[in-house]
Amino acid sequence: MMVETSIKEIPELKIHGRTTACREPLTLFWTASGFECNVSGSELWVEVEVTYDVFEPWFSYTVNGDWIGRQMLVKGRYWIPLFRGMNPDKVKNVRFYKDLQAMSDDGDSYVHIHALRHDGKFYPVEEKALKLEFIGDSITSGEGLFGAKQEEDWIPMFFSALRDYAYLTAKALDAEYRVFSQSGWGVHNTWDNNTRGAIPKYYREVCSLMSGAENERLGGNMPHDFDSWQPDCVIVNLGTNDASAFDQPEWVDEKTGEHHKMRRNPDGSYSEEDVRAFRDAVKDFLYTLRACNKKAHIIWCYGMLGTPLQIPICEAIGAYIAASGDRRVSYLQLPNTDETNVGSRQHPGALCHQQAAEVLSKYIAQLV
Amino acid sequence: MMVETSIKEIPELKIHGRTTACREPLTLFWTASGFECNVSGSELWVEVEVTYDVFEPWFSYTVNGDWIGRQMLVKGRYWIPLFRGMNPDKVKNVRFYKDLQAMSDDGDSYVHIHALRHDGKFYPVEEKALKLEFIGDSITSGEGLFGAKQEEDWIPMFFSALRDYAYLTAKALDAEYRVFSQSGWGVHNTWDNNTRGAIPKYYREVCSLMSGAENERLGGNMPHDFDSWQPDCVIVNLGTNDASAFDQPEWVDEKTGEHHKMRRNPDGSYSEEDVRAFRDAVKDFLYTLRACNKKAHIIWCYGMLGTPLQIPICEAIGAYIAASGDRRVSYLQLPNTDETNVGSRQHPGALCHQQAAEVLSKYIAQLV
Amino acid sequence: MMVETSIKEIPELKIHGRTTACREPLTLFWTASGFECNVSGSELWVEVEVTYDVFEPWFSYTVNGDWIGRQMLVKGRYWIPLFRGMNPDKVKNVRFYKDLQAMSDDGDSYVHIHALRHDGKFYPVEEKALKLEFIGDSITSGEGLFGAKQEEDWIPMFFSALRDYAYLTAKALDAEYRVFSQSGWGVHNTWDNNTRGAIPKYYREVCSLMSGAENERLGGNMPHDFDSWQPDCVIVNLGTNDASAFDQPEWVDEKTGEHHKMRRNPDGSYSEEDVRAFRDAVKDFLYTLRACNKKAHIIWCYGMLGTPLQIPICEAIGAYIAASGDRRVSYLQLPNTDETNVGSRQHPGALCHQQAAEVLSKYIAQLV
Amino acid sequence: MMVETSIKEIPELKIHGRTTACREPLTLFWTASGFECNVSGSELWVEVEVTYDVFEPWFSYTVNGDWIGRQMLVKGRYWIPLFRGMNPDKVKNVRFYKDLQAMSDDGDSYVHIHALRHDGKFYPVEEKALKLEFIGDSITSGEGLFGAKQEEDWIPMFFSALRDYAYLTAKALDAEYRVFSQSGWGVHNTWDNNTRGAIPKYYREVCSLMSGAENERLGGNMPHDFDSWQPDCVIVNLGTNDASAFDQPEWVDEKTGEHHKMRRNPDGSYSEEDVRAFRDAVKDFLYTLRACNKKAHIIWCYGMLGTPLQIPICEAIGAYIAASGDRRVSYLQLPNTDETNVGSRQHPGALCHQQAAEVLSKYIAQLV
Repeated sequence: MMVETSIKEIPELKIHGRTTACREPLTLFWTASGFECNVSGSELWVEVEVTYDVFEPWFSYTVNGDWIGRQMLVKGRYWIPLFRGMNPDKVKNVRFYKDLQAMSDDGDSYVHIHALRHDGKFYPVEEKALKLEFIGDSITSGEGLFGAKQEEDWIPMFFSALRDYAYLTAKALDAEYRVFSQSGWGVHNTWDNNTRGAIPKYYREVCSLMSGAENERLGGNMPHDFDSWQPDCVIVNLGTNDASAFDQPEWVDEKTGEHHKMRRNPDGSYSEEDVRAFRDAVKDFLYTLRACNKKAHIIWCYGMLGTPLQIPICEAIGAYIAASGDRRVSYLQLPNTDETNVGSRQHPGALCHQQAAEVLSKYIAQLV
Repeated sequence: MMVETSIKEIPELKIHGRTTACREPLTLFWTASGFECNVSGSELWVEVEVTYDVFEPWFSYTVNGDWIGRQMLVKGRYWIPLFRGMNPDKVKNVRFYKDLQAMSDDGDSYVHIHALRHDGKFYPVEEKALKLEFIGDSITSGEGLFGAKQEEDWIPMFFSALRDYAYLTAKALDAEYRVFSQSGWGVHNTWDNNTRGAIPKYYREVCSLMSGAENERLGGNMPHDFDSWQPDCVIVNLGTNDASAFDQPEWVDEKTGEHHKMRRNPDGSYSEEDVRAFRDAVKDFLYTLRACNKKAHIIWCYGMLGTPLQIPICEAIGAYIAASGDRRVSYLQLPNTDETNVGSRQHPGALCHQQAAEVLSKYIAQLV
Repeated sequence: MMVETSIKEIPELKIHGRTTACREPLTLFWTASGFECNVSGSELWVEVEVTYDVFEPWFSYTVNGDWIGRQMLVKGRYWIPLFRGMNPDKVKNVRFYKDLQAMSDDGDSYVHIHALRHDGKFYPVEEKALKLEFIGDSITSGEGLFGAKQEEDWIPMFFSALRDYAYLTAKALDAEYRVFSQSGWGVHNTWDNNTRGAIPKYYREVCSLMSGAENERLGGNMPHDFDSWQPDCVIVNLGTNDASAFDQPEWVDEKTGEHHKMRRNPDGSYSEEDVRAFRDAVKDFLYTLRACNKKAHIIWCYGMLGTPLQIPICEAIGAYIAASGDRRVSYLQLPNTDETNVGSRQHPGALCHQQAAEVLSKYIAQLV
Repeated sequence: MMVETSIKEIPELKIHGRTTACREPLTLFWTASGFECNVSGSELWVEVEVTYDVFEPWFSYTVNGDWIGRQMLVKGRYWIPLFRGMNPDKVKNVRFYKDLQAMSDDGDSYVHIHALRHDGKFYPVEEKALKLEFIGDSITSGEGLFGAKQEEDWIPMFFSALRDYAYLTAKALDAEYRVFSQSGWGVHNTWDNNTRGAIPKYYREVCSLMSGAENERLGGNMPHDFDSWQPDCVIVNLGTNDASAFDQPEWVDEKTGEHHKMRRNPDGSYSEEDVRAFRDAVKDFLYTLRACNKKAHIIWCYGMLGTPLQIPICEAIGAYIAASGDRRVSYLQLPNTDETNVGSRQHPGALCHQQAAEVLSKYIAQLV
């Protein structure tokens, strides 16, 4: 017999991704956030509540670890079937993924999980031995992993958690993972010089890069409780947008007059002053990461869209290690995108993410 | 401005797969049947009507040739979003696939397409230079292409058109294709000796292997108009279930007393009498295929789950060629399934289908 | 201290390939024939005696299973170094391969092995659990596995045992193997209709396809002692040249007036009378193979250069099984050559042989 | 008719690798050094003169770009056949490679080329549009590219130019290339702390790391004429042995008392003082490289055996760029060795070199 159970009444349910303590409903903010359950019974449905102004969320899900479905979420509160007709006696592992990043440009774009409808029984989800946190930009948000090569629209349909190197790395290592990422953002500024789009500024809250009243109401701006979940490795994949900014016009905040531009020298090389600001931002972020993650290996990754800031990143890491004595920080270059592995929107494609996951998972396996 | 248009009022829409002439609504019977359109505008929805008793249908779709979504279809008549937020000026190619075979065990399992909601304009879909028809069993129905290796449930969720060798072969050759397939069936009988599950008996009608009043009403039992669509190649992938039958108990129709069993000799080898019946069924089917497809290359494929009946198949092909003088018939062995490429339900997995598609598409490219 | 030991005084030496009982010297006739030893000491040399009129032999060798060297052999009797400077205490496995087929066009082309120079001790070579015999044409002789794609010279340099599917299959299965092959030959006639170039006519002797006084003297025309080495599998890869003959002019023996031609019908199809002769030759060869190899699985392989005679081969196998009741005979299609895997001289390249070895070794593993 | 021609009388002959002006004979010092010719005729032999005390040289050669043979060279002056029986009218491209590094531990290990025996005519070798110089250690010397995984002997047999990333990169880019490398050596010291094994100390001479009277006589200690050959890219792959030295005992020169050791701190981290010395060595070498190669892109590669000194290398590059203003210097991480791609002697295997060549050749293609 099918019953409907609020997720707050399912203690066996595992929640993935940074979120608040609220379970009526559970709010999904970040890429790959969601829930996981082990459940018997023949059938399973999930009750979602979906809001957005411009950018609709998508979700994907796996059954017993295999990707089963992916679909756009329409507005409203409604039930979605996840499986039916299965052997009721067997316990199935189901993992629901928000298949879209926190959309900072749409303060109303959320997925909330209310309840599950089922005819089985829930069982605990085993803890993974390894925990990974991925911090990044569009690459880590899986932008360009869906869609034909010629696609140019910046829309949710072309983002995905499940072809992403983060997902693939976690899978290869049988690890639990979280994603903290924002397309177009960097360590020091966005791809177009906006200094408010600096990932480090938002790292200490649950999801403060979502703006507006709804995020305030949902608790996204509250401090994140780092003690509640300590990763074994923090993988930072930032710097790509910081480099783009050298080729973009100055950013000006029309209200405050605030402005910023990463500048090139007359000979085309990067302004040393601006590179220094970038290096300082990298170094500062390493202090922040260490403060929040006492024992984690911190791996700064870079290179899936070229390596123009590689030397400054390594210099900043070197300077941080020298100043702090903290040796659990390292640098790893990831495979570049070329015509053989590119996806849509000139972003790394599925093959590039697979190549990156192979390099990264081998690296982590040696480290931990 | 969004408008809703009945598909019968969209002459630019291309219909894929064997179906009737009805367009109010369009009924989808077979794996990979569906529709394709070229459309401008920012948004597209499809109105479906879904029925089933036991086995719910699924669908997948592509945008500009890239797989975007896959989901279970619940009962009822309702709208599903396919894309939104796209550049309204560009023309998008969208292809909707029934992601489940005709389910002969559930006479009520259908997807009907009523209308499209959109804010653009439709453009003609270019004809492909090559047309392929695939005739087969569970392998051609894509059984086992979704789901973890350990899955054993025989449910729609684990069938898929879009990881199938038929889809992949057509994609490699830029061909239009149709699928005529049924899990568990063979040339002469089903995997468990039922002689009614012989694909050739149903080849001349639209979809007569679906039983019951609803199929009668929908026109599935009507003769198929072969002149309306003549393939360049007919690919038959049958024989796997005929071989299984040698290891299954006798089939008995309790009402009529009719019964059948493919028998082994005391030494374990196949009964020559039963093999002869199989060979005759292969030969007869070749006559049927040629009668219906005057000019097509007929390629009998076999081997994705072993080759126990390979010699009889080749003998039957040889006998047909000798008797008919028809030389546009050939045999092709496809890559076998092993532990490296297996999918769920002990069926060929995605890698095996990729390998098969590579062999088959190269073979067809040499032939046509 | 280095010593020179005649190979007849090294009972631990393992001889590979069909040859006579003579060990003063050992004569190498066939592709991949040679010797294998387990030896300690720092250094090893081999004394060869090489003769030829037109086609010089080549050799390759492995140390501990890894390919180390390949070189042309000049005429004369001389010493060749195989290794030096190695840890004298460790036992090394060394395998010497004739890297050229028996050259039926040059009755003087032989490699003889006289002695080994060394500073160690010999140890027995362990017997492999599996024995394979490969019977074939240029494909099995490894023609086209060396040399750039544009090469057209028919010379020993472009033949090789060590990139061949036979070598690779044996390696994958950890099997001992022998090769019986001749470029340009078939089951019934050569690629250019010569009926004397039919492999079955020579199968019962040591190496009777080498002609002339030297072969007589060496014992190549003596009956082969099949009891001395019984393979677990006989792999026949013939039929490719039989098909070529349909497009070649008639062969005429100017002395005897004997002549032969595989003919096409006016519509381009093969003459049924000539195909029947081919089928009879396949069937007859199966009887011969079974008479000589009582318990072996016989696998007829075909397809690395297309499959024009596939149906007749399968029909002949079917007829043989029906007539003999012998069920240890089967048919296996091997991967075809195309522009992605071709080698020199329009022959299958290294990649095609790897693909074939993968298919074949998996097939054999299921069989034995 | 076969003739013998001294190589000094063959102006069409192209010499590869750093060497002196002497052509009676030509001396081969470095890995991949040798000659290349375009020649008609049916047959070609080379007259070599080979000397060594401990470590015998090997050679490999290609015909029309395809690897044909590889063999150990015995002492003495003698003729070696390269091809025979070829179409005399066609022009063949032949490239002879020294398949062993300059062996600094054996001051008598050389290959000299005296003459060619042939029946054809020589034609000019076309200049490549791209020139590459590779500077490295055992990885660049191709150590571990031959031999089974378990091999541990440090002998010439296990070195090879032709499976090396340098060869493969040059081939992918259709480039001419030179190799300057020494197994066990580094930027600042050898793997076991010997400061005399620092590659930069020898870069300005032809081959001054070979010691002894014979090298003096041959001109190896003479200044190298950099104007005679200016590469488009200098690829440095050094640092691996510098890192090993931290785990090795102090090196002491018993005669002079000179000693050196790269030290670890009590907590296991590297001594900052010693890392600074390493960074200075990297920086100094960059100045040397730029002085000798005015316009080349300099690419510092690292990572095929781990990345313990990656940050210091990048810091040194950054410091060099900042101090010099020279921006044609960059850093590239190469794929690491693991159990899937390892060769003999715990060195990168053929697969790892292929992976490195793919990364490096794509990187260079973007750069030049």
